[in-house]
Formats: sequence, structure tokens, C-alpha cells
Amino acid sequence: MTVIVNLVRRIVNCSEIILKLNQNQVKQCARDFSITRKYFKNNQLANWGTKKAHRNIKLQLQLIQEMADPKIEEILAPLRAAVKEQGDLVRQLKSDGAPEIDVKKAIVELKARKKILEDKELSLAPQVASFDRAKMEDLLKRRFFYDQSFAIYGGITGQYDFGPMGCMLKANMLNLWRQFFVLEEQMLEVDCSILTPEPVLKTSGHVDRFADLMVKDSKTGECFRLDHLIKAHLEKLASDKKATQELKDECADIVVKLDGMNKQEMGDILKKFNMKSPLTQNELTEPIEFNLMFGTSIGPTGLVKGFLRPETAQGIFVNFKRLLEFNQGRLPFAAAQIGNSFRNEISPRSGLIRVREFTMAEIEHFCDPNLKDHPKFVDVADYEMTLYSACNQMDGNSASRITIGEAVKTGLVANETLGYFMARIQMFLIKVGILPERLRFRQHMNNEMAHYACDCWDAECLTSYGWIECVGCADRSAYDLTQHTNATGVRLTAEKKLPEPKTIEFTEAVPNMKILGKLFKKDAKEITELLSKLSIDDLKKMNDELTQNNSYTLKSDANSYTLNNEMVTIKSGSKTIHVEEIIPSVIEPSFGIGRIMYALLEHRFQMRDGDEQRCFFSLPPIVAPLKCSVLPLSNNQEFTPFIKQISSALTRVDVSHKVDDSSGSIGRRYARTDEIAIAYGITIDFDTVKDKTVTLRERDSMTQIRIPIDEVAEVVRNLSYSKIEWSDVTSKYPKFEQQENAAQK
Amino acid sequence: MTVIVNLVRRIVNCSEIILKLNQNQVKQCARDFSITRKYFKNNQLANWGTKKAHRNIKLQLQLIQEMADPKIEEILAPLRAAVKEQGDLVRQLKSDGAPEIDVKKAIVELKARKKILEDKELSLAPQVASFDRAKMEDLLKRRFFYDQSFAIYGGITGQYDFGPMGCMLKANMLNLWRQFFVLEEQMLEVDCSILTPEPVLKTSGHVDRFADLMVKDSKTGECFRLDHLIKAHLEKLASDKKATQELKDECADIVVKLDGMNKQEMGDILKKFNMKSPLTQNELTEPIEFNLMFGTSIGPTGLVKGFLRPETAQGIFVNFKRLLEFNQGRLPFAAAQIGNSFRNEISPRSGLIRVREFTMAEIEHFCDPNLKDHPKFVDVADYEMTLYSACNQMDGNSASRITIGEAVKTGLVANETLGYFMARIQMFLIKVGILPERLRFRQHMNNEMAHYACDCWDAECLTSYGWIECVGCADRSAYDLTQHTNATGVRLTAEKKLPEPKTIEFTEAVPNMKILGKLFKKDAKEITELLSKLSIDDLKKMNDELTQNNSYTLKSDANSYTLNNEMVTIKSGSKTIHVEEIIPSVIEPSFGIGRIMYALLEHRFQMRDGDEQRCFFSLPPIVAPLKCSVLPLSNNQEFTPFIKQISSALTRVDVSHKVDDSSGSIGRRYARTDEIAIAYGITIDFDTVKDKTVTLRERDSMTQIRIPIDEVAEVVRNLSYSKIEWSDVTSKYPKFEQQENAAQK
Repeated sequence: MTVIVNLVRRIVNCSEIILKLNQNQVKQCARDFSITRKYFKNNQLANWGTKKAHRNIKLQLQLIQEMADPKIEEILAPLRAAVKEQGDLVRQLKSDGAPEIDVKKAIVELKARKKILEDKELSLAPQVASFDRAKMEDLLKRRFFYDQSFAIYGGITGQYDFGPMGCMLKANMLNLWRQFFVLEEQMLEVDCSILTPEPVLKTSGHVDRFADLMVKDSKTGECFRLDHLIKAHLEKLASDKKATQELKDECADIVVKLDGMNKQEMGDILKKFNMKSPLTQNELTEPIEFNLMFGTSIGPTGLVKGFLRPETAQGIFVNFKRLLEFNQGRLPFAAAQIGNSFRNEISPRSGLIRVREFTMAEIEHFCDPNLKDHPKFVDVADYEMTLYSACNQMDGNSASRITIGEAVKTGLVANETLGYFMARIQMFLIKVGILPERLRFRQHMNNEMAHYACDCWDAECLTSYGWIECVGCADRSAYDLTQHTNATGVRLTAEKKLPEPKTIEFTEAVPNMKILGKLFKKDAKEITELLSKLSIDDLKKMNDELTQNNSYTLKSDANSYTLNNEMVTIKSGSKTIHVEEIIPSVIEPSFGIGRIMYALLEHRFQMRDGDEQRCFFSLPPIVAPLKCSVLPLSNNQEFTPFIKQISSALTRVDVSHKVDDSSGSIGRRYARTDEIAIAYGITIDFDTVKDKTVTLRERDSMTQIRIPIDEVAEVVRNLSYSKIEWSDVTSKYPKFEQQENAAQK
Repeated sequence: MTVIVNLVRRIVNCSEIILKLNQNQVKQCARDFSITRKYFKNNQLANWGTKKAHRNIKLQLQLIQEMADPKIEEILAPLRAAVKEQGDLVRQLKSDGAPEIDVKKAIVELKARKKILEDKELSLAPQVASFDRAKMEDLLKRRFFYDQSFAIYGGITGQYDFGPMGCMLKANMLNLWRQFFVLEEQMLEVDCSILTPEPVLKTSGHVDRFADLMVKDSKTGECFRLDHLIKAHLEKLASDKKATQELKDECADIVVKLDGMNKQEMGDILKKFNMKSPLTQNELTEPIEFNLMFGTSIGPTGLVKGFLRPETAQGIFVNFKRLLEFNQGRLPFAAAQIGNSFRNEISPRSGLIRVREFTMAEIEHFCDPNLKDHPKFVDVADYEMTLYSACNQMDGNSASRITIGEAVKTGLVANETLGYFMARIQMFLIKVGILPERLRFRQHMNNEMAHYACDCWDAECLTSYGWIECVGCADRSAYDLTQHTNATGVRLTAEKKLPEPKTIEFTEAVPNMKILGKLFKKDAKEITELLSKLSIDDLKKMNDELTQNNSYTLKSDANSYTLNNEMVTIKSGSKTIHVEEIIPSVIEPSFGIGRIMYALLEHRFQMRDGDEQRCFFSLPPIVAPLKCSVLPLSNNQEFTPFIKQISSALTRVDVSHKVDDSSGSIGRRYARTDEIAIAYGITIDFDTVKDKTVTLRERDSMTQIRIPIDEVAEVVRNLSYSKIEWSDVTSKYPKFEQQENAAQK
């Protein structure tokens, strides 16, 4: 019971940080609003492979500081005020316990105002980067980082194959992840089945709740995602020359509010505007909820229904008992899993951001719900982060820079463990190569929190598709373990040692099995079960009746049994207990590897001096697909033994590399290696033959040094694994000044 | 055309190595016999989790040398002769071009005799190891290496979750694989989609051919794998006390021949013995072919059918063009992929050996079909291997030790590339920890070769389930690329530079497009297409008619066109070509990671001095889940800073480790770390506090040395990654003699 009370208290605490509202209201809000996944739907613009569109998208980076320019702030002031006004109204309605429908309407309006403010902010911010998405996608395709799956068969949308460079980048990111989280934090890594039987996902809520709305063409059966369809229809209406200002405003208003709408509301809009299939002009069906899981059946009978898992987390939860035992029964501990998950998107788009098959890396940190402190929090307390709190979102303010220590101290971030993981997530993302100024942590507002979470922060990266969620970090409280315990009867709990032994009073009915068995045969079992479930009051009543009448009638739903003093005795007393049973809380950092990779590629895509022919990815060496290239100046036979020598030396120290002895000029070959993000280049020239030295070139700066052939492999290794910096190398070895485009000798 | 001729020649060559038979016969045999997968079906005995059965299975290792004992050879001689007699008969029938049915019957008999010989060999061989499978499985479960998935929901057969130790072992094996193959051989690694649309698997043959036979209980619908059912039924019949010797012999005979039987033959046996459902005694249905792929539908319409891939190879084939381009158009190159595949087994069993979801690591080496030499073959030519050739299998001989150089030279192994990979596979398996004396390469006999292969060798490991296939190494010839080319019209070919430019004669019909376009409008396109397809003879005839009559009638299926000399001209001449188009051959090493892991665990499971309480896995440090343990002698506060110091130092040099500061005695904690195969143990004791030294213990020998705390992390790192040997350490540092079971101070 204490456990439950504590849990409730914890949930309420989390909520109080942001808003004062009662628990039912929290639940209602969580139910009424779409979950986070949907947040960026409307920001996505184009399909993979678009060649012409979206060249030179302007990225504006006013994120953190208040606008410096007072003129801009002047323009934004009324918009900020409008958001705050509405935010205050929502707070007021909630604290007044206003009807659900009123609160909900107010929140939809709040979100709409917030969106207008954010769009204006971005449009006014000084432009700091120009990004040509089509150019980058062209390079990714041409050098086969990744591309559409089964293209020779026409392809399937939302599925991608990673080529050699994409695959190595991904493998390096995952290795780093494993090292950074699993190894360094001594987590328990598991690798669970993808095929999941239906009951497991029924319990987790995915069978009932994991759905998007769609409509079908009533004749052809073609499917459309409802929100996409409405948005496209209204935008077309509004762009018509004859459209009145009133209509334009109405359309814009609906588009902004779409995210918060339910089935009924969207259905009404469909009817109001008499929307038809955009392809055939046929009638459309009513909105249908389409479950996003891929179904199949397991085994030959066709009777065991299963799904491809939509997240890896459930595999960890159902193994909780084994993991707890592996950890010798002790809390806290974290389990981790890297693996593929699947979502049958209605209309996948936006390249790697919304796909049907994707790799996740998830951590489930199990801890005592009353002890969410973290022993290593002190190590990260001074770490500065960009936090975009729910309050700031409601008040029309921007994100702010704050140390994680301060954020936890003021209660903005719910607890140390959540804060510790947020800091570690940021460290990891920056180590991978995400640009810090395009990274923020956005707190979920109460109304967008998933049904299981009590506080949630998303690490979002700014890309040409807008801010996209790359890592979620949620306090899932005891939701999942409680659900699986209820569904299976297997108690997914831990024992917590009490600070000191506790004496508790007890009263219980002790059955005399010998007599019961003789008299009631197989019913004796039901009797003992019924006895064990009696409340204190029942036991007291039973004791009275047995004492007075030597008879008590015990009733189940179906039967009733008359018992006497020979058959059962009431015992009271006190006993000492040393442990209590608790359902652990779960803190879950959940990484979308494909999304991080996409954001990383955008952040690190560069052109030299605006030359479209010289694009490259400035990926950090630790994740770069290949660390090093080996380039003979020409195909002169004298160079061959040196190529072999260097290649073997690099292999010996585990440095992935590529020998490019093709016939292009050295400058052209450098450009080719730059395109696939190779961090360092070793060139063998005629001096190598004379004095056994080679040149070593760094990709981003294009500077070169001259280094003895015997030392180069070790130096590249140390550079690749961040043991030394390029500046260490340039200060030690002589600079090499020859032009890149020197003619071949 | 040359390409096709070469291919055919190559296929015939491969076959000739073993047997002389014509190409149609090869095809027939391949069709009529089940593919390799099925080979070990009948050797599998028990389900995972069986606690009592199969204790102390005797492993006999007479594999390589001829039996030393002449008495044993005396017993085996007639059995060997019987095999050889039948092998000769098969050869004879084939070279005589005997009817298919006769050849097939003879092969079934050959297999049966071979099995009797092998069983006898094993039963007579001196017992070299005793293995308690139940004991090992208990340990694997208890320490959560792996266990049944979704157990709290009742579990699903054929699905396993890997716990922390299994997951780390698997990750280490895969990392080693990536280093050993991808990095060292500079392969192109890809990561392709699991969900595969139907047409792709239709082309590969999986939709039509990837099936097992089953029967259903006609009332309950319960499914049984047909061969399992027949075997169980007949074994029960034969074990009946009243069974006549005749019946016993018949049953034994059928069981031995089951592997080679088709649907009709098994159906007949079902009827002859009037078999019923073993569970309900209800009637059974006719045999049904059950496709082993998991089906689903992609997208919301339910109309796009897809499957979970049954192998990773197809993802590579459909990306062939992109990979070739990535490799700048040059052959040979190898692509590699690590990933999960799925097979909906009818009745999965034998633990990790036959499961529904498994990790594969596959390599597809693409090369010129006429150039299967390998530049690095010379490096492995002297490497000795245990080869069990098709000839030896047919002659009743054992496997033999031979260098791979000799095997390729004599034509036993078809080519250098196949041989190179076989040697590399063996090196990898031994590096992982597979015992060389329990490893052999078995050549597929013609009749068990998959439809696509022209030579195939399986790396088999001896386990308590018998010899199990862990790695397949097949020459798939041009089968897959040809199939996908035919299905899609996309030419999956490479260009091969001719050694010198070649002049070829040509005759072609040159259309006058201007006139044709004017006269025939859109039909002009069909006319040019028809013209381009005319044979030399057609062109000659056309030339004659045009010369004589100035008129030629060109016919398609639907239309006919009358052409004259203005519309078309016949040109002859010679032209110089520099390249020819070839369909590359594919050599495919395919690793079953779960099977290798299972064999490895069996090979490395040990008991100290026969003490059942002291079991451990002597895994090589490079794959051991954790490299090192850190054990304070007691929970004395003075030890704490040293634990932290060592743990940080180990993390810094990437050594995975586990701190065990629980309260057990040091000996008991060593035993616990031995169970999870931790290779080294560092103990902190009171001397550490005094002189800053610790003990370092090696798992297999249990020897200990004393080493300064500052040096220990680096030493463990070098040991873990095979940079130094334990003997290097014992010779450098003083031995530490204290007993493991010393009392706690």
C-alpha cells in the first residue's frame, strides 16, 4: 500500500513542477492528446530523392539567447503576450477543475499561438547557415551511404538499405554508444526477440492505442493519412486566387490545430469541406484507426498472432526478474538493448526520419521510486544544457541555457537520475558530432505526455525538416512493470531492505488442512484461498461468530462452506519484517539511431568555398566510416610495397582504411575521399621511395604534414580514437605545402 | 554467349570433381533431394530446458585418423564395403544415364548405409569427453546467457532472449567477425531491410521452394512436422515388446531413409502404418507443404504482400549494381552483411540450433566466373584442414587431414577463392574458441546441393546433437544475379576489360527513322525493336529480299510491316570492342551466429575435477563476455578507493569488467565469475593498502601473480586482445600462492 501511495505522490510531484492540477486531469490530458511521435508531422516537407526542391534551405538558429535586436523583440512582444495569456488561461481552467472539453480547447489554442510565435521567431532570426538538401541527398545516394530498398523491384517507401559508408557510420555510432553507456555505466545489455506474441503488446497498450487515423478512397481502396490529406487540401484551397481572406484564415487556423485534433474533429472537417480522394475525386470513407504494427502469425497453425515489435523496451520489461536476479537482487540497475523495431507507417516520408524499419538503442534504468538520486550526478552537475521547459513553452519564452545541477535543484528536471541521463545523452550526441547550437532538450507538456510517463524530455536536433526528436528521455514511473504484473500474475517487483526491521501486527485464519481435506476434498483448496483473502474486518467477524456459535459461513461466488473451530483457527500476533516489496520506477532514454544519423549528416554537410563540386562530411573521426585513405601519387610500381606496408600496419592497429590506387589526380582522389568523410589521407610519393616518409592530410583543414612511414599508422590510430588532436601532430611534424592539385609526376 | 558457355562449363567442371554425370542429371538430383538445412533434422534429441535427460552424453571423436585398433577396423570393414558398393552403383547408374527414379533409390540406400557406418564408427570410438548437457543448460539459464523469450507469458518455442552474458558474447563474436572479414579483407558491409516484398523472394525461389512438410489433426488443427511424426511413430512401434524382428528392421530402415523422401513417399508411409494424431488419435490430413517464411503486409492497404527475410543474401544481390559502382566498376569484390533472419519452423527444437529468429553473417564475393583465383591464397595454402569430401562419404571413408593448397591443386575444392574462404572460416572459428578436433568441412554430395550451388562445403561442429552445420561455404555461380536480372530487366552484370581489343564481324539492319516515323508514326518504335532482334539468318534473308524485290515483310506477334530499301539498310562490317559483359559468380560464406555460439559453449563447458558445483566456460578472452572481475577481499572501507581506481583504469583502456563487492568468500566469488567465463580476476587485499599491488588470476589455470596496481589495467588489456600471453605475465611477475578458499580476514 505504501508503494502505491508513494507512486501517486511521485506522479503528482512530477506534475506539480509544471502545473497544479489533479490526477484525473493529468490522465485526461494524456489521453486526449496525441503522443509525441506526432509532434513533427507537419514539419516534414519532401520525399527522399527529390532532386530539385528544397535547395538552399535557410536555417535560422535563434534558439537560446533572447533576440539581441530590440526591434525584433518589439515585433515578437505581442505574440509572446498572446501565448502567455492563453497559457495562464489553461492553468486557470485546470486549477478551477473546468470541464475537460474546455481545457482541451484552450490547449489547442495555446499550441496554435505557440506555433505562430515560433515560426515568427525563426523567420526573423539572422540566417546563420544555408543548406542544400537536394545536394546532400544526391551525394548520399551517389556514394551509397543509404538508398531506397529493393529499388530494382520498384522499391518500397519507408525502407532503406545502408551501403558500405552508411553501414560503417552506423556501426561506429553503435559501438560508441555501447562503450559510452553499456561499458562505462556497467549496464546489462540484452538482445530480445523481434517477433512478439499479441498478449505482450496488448498489455503494453500497443494493440489498442498505437494507431494513426486514415481514410480510404471508397472505390479504389487507396489509403491516405488523414492529417496529411486535410493539410494538403486546405493549403490548396487557401492558395487559390479566388479564396477570401476569411477562408484563408480558417484554413491556416485548422492546419495549425490539426495536431491536437481527435477522430471526430478531423471527421467533421472532412465533411465540412466535402473532401474527396485527391487522386480520383472518389468519395472517402469515415476516418479509420489504423494500427501501426506489422502483424504475422507464429507457427504453422495460423492461430498464434504476433507482431514485429514497435519498440525494444518491452523485451527488457518481460525479462525484469531475470535481470534483477543477475544483478543479485539489487536496485538500481540499468538494462540496455540495441535492435530493430518496425512501424507500418501509412505514408512514410522525410527520408530516414519516418521509416518502417529502424534501429533503436534503449536503456531502462530501474530504481526505487523513492530514491531517484544518482551517485554520479555530482560529476555532471555543472554541465550546461539548452532546456526548453514546458513553462517556457506555455509562457511564450525561448529555450534557456542552464546547468543540469541547477535544473534538478529548482525542480525543473524531476530528479537526479533523469538529469544525469539527459546530460549523458547530450555528451554522447556532441561526441558523435551533433552541433551543440542545433541541439535542445524540450520538455513534454502535460497534455502531450505518453500515458505512461510522468516527466519527459526530448533531445531535439534542428534540421531542414525543423526540430526533430532524436532521443526521448522519460520517467515511465512504475507503469510497465505494473501492467505486466497485472497481466501475468508474475510479480515484477524487487525487495527493498528496510532501514531497520519493522514489527507489524497480523491477524490470520489458519486452516486445519487435515480435517478440511477429509471433509471437503478438492474444495479444500478453494476454502484456503478464500480464507487467505479475508480482510481484517472479515476476520474479526469470523472470530466473533466462531467464538459465539462455533460456526461461520464462508462464501465464494459460486459456493458457500460452513466452518467450525476444528476446521479453522484465528491467530493474532506480531512479526518482524526486514524487507518490503516495491515496484521499481523506470527511467528510459530511447535513441532513434537513424534520426541521429540523419541530423548528424545534415549538421556535418559542407561545401568548400561554395564550390558545389567539392562537398564533404566533416564527421568526427571516431564515427567516420573509414578513418584513413592510402593514396599512391601515381600507379608507379615502386609505390606498391609501401601501399602494402601501410595497409598492413593500419590493419594491425584496427584502423579502417581504403586504398585508392585509381588513376585520378591526387586532388581529385582527395575530393572523392572527402565525400565519404574519410578523416585522414596518407599519400605515397617519390620522396617516400627516397626517405621513407609520407604525407598525412587532415580532411577539414586540408593541412598536410610529412611523417616517417613507420610512425604513421600509430599516429592515425591515436587521432581516430581521440587520443591526440590534429594540433598535436602539426606541432610535432613538419608541414607539407605542396598543392593538392599538383600534376602527377 | 561466351558467358553462358563458360558458366555451363564451370558447372560441369565442379561436378566432374566428384562424379561424371550430365547436367540434366545434376539438376534433377538437386531438385529431388532436400536441401542441406534438412540434413540434421533427425539428429536432434531434446528441447531446451529438459532437466533430467541427456546427462553425461558421451562424445566420441574418431573423426580424422583411421581407427588405430585393427579389431575395430575389422568390425567396420564390411560396413565400409557396403557403402562403397552402393557408391559405385550410384556412379554406374549415373554414367549409364539410368532413369531418374533408379538413381534416386540408389542414393537413398547409399545414405542409409552411410548412416549405419557413421553410427557404428562413433559407438566404437574411444570416448574422449563426457558432456552433461542438462548441467550446461542449467548454468546458461541460471546466469542468463540466454533463455526462452516471453516466458512470463508462457513463452514461444524457437525464440530466445540473450541476457547480459549471451549478448556480450554475441557482440564480441560479431565484432571479431567484422574485424576478421570486413576490415581485414576490405569488404563492403551493408545493412539491408528485413521486410522484403514478395516479388524479390519469388525470384530467389523462396516463395515456391522454401517449405517443410506437415500434417494436421483433422479435428483440432494441431500441426506436426511430417518427418518428426513418422520417426516418433515408427520408433514407438519398434520398441514394442511384441514387435517382430521384421517390423523392427522395416521401421529402422524407413527412419534412416526419411531424409531423402518426398511428399508422396512420406504420404504412403503415413497410410501404410495408418498413423493418427499422437495427441488425440484423430485422423490426419494429407501432407501439406508449409512455407517457412513469416508473411505480413506492408502499408495500410493490405495489398502489398511481404515476408521477413529468410536469409540476408538477397539484400546484397538486389544492391549489386550500387556496390559495383561503389567499387568503381571493378571485380572482384566482396559484400558482407550481419543481421537477423526469420524462419517459421513447424516445430522448433534443439535450443539455439533450430530457432525462428536468428542472426546471420553473410559474405557474397563477386568475381569473374573464369577467374576464381585469389591473390591471398598463397598465404593460406599450407593451412591444414579436416575435409570430408563427397567421394569419401560415398566410399565409406572418414574425413582426412589435408592442406587447402593440396585440396585446390587436386581439384577436391573447386577453386582458390572457395579454398581461401574455407581456410579463413576455419581460422575464425578457432580464434572464437571452437575446438579444432571437433570441426570438419563436409562437402555436399551432388544430390543434396541447393539448386543454385555448384560446389558447397559446410563447416560442421561436433556437439551433443551430432555434427551441426555452423557455416556454409557455397559457390552459387551466377544463379542469383541471373534470376534477378531476368525478373527485373535490370542487368546485374559487370564489364570485363578484354586482354586486348577484339575485332568482331557484325551485320545489322539500320532503320531510317525519319521515313519510318513519318509513315508508321508510333509503330516506328516497334519496328526498330523488331529489327534489332533479327538473327543473322533473318538479316541475310532480308538482305536478299530487299535486293531482289525492294520489299521485306517484318512480323511481330500482332502486326506485320512491309519495308523497302528506303526505310532500312543492311550494313555489315567489323568493329573493335574493348570490354565484354559478364554475370559475376558468387562465392558465399554464410555464418549462423547462434549455432556457432552454441557449439562454442558446448566445446568450452568444463568442470573442475569433476565437481558439479564448479562448472565454467573456458572461452577465449577475446570473446569472453567480460574480460575481468574486480574483487575486494572483503567489504572493508579501505578497499573502496582502489576499486574505483582500477575500475576507471579498465574503462579507460576499454576493458569490460564487473566489480563484485558482494559478501561471499573470495573462492565463491571466483567460482561465480568463472561461471560467466570472466577471463581474469583482480583481487584487492590488505597488502594492496600497504604496497599498492593486487593479485591477478587467470581463469583456466587458476594461477595468480602479484602485480603493481598501476600496471594491471594495461596488462589485462593486452591479455584480453591477445597482444600478450598469460605465460608472458607469469614469467614477468611473482607468483601468488595463497589459497583461493582462504578465509576472509
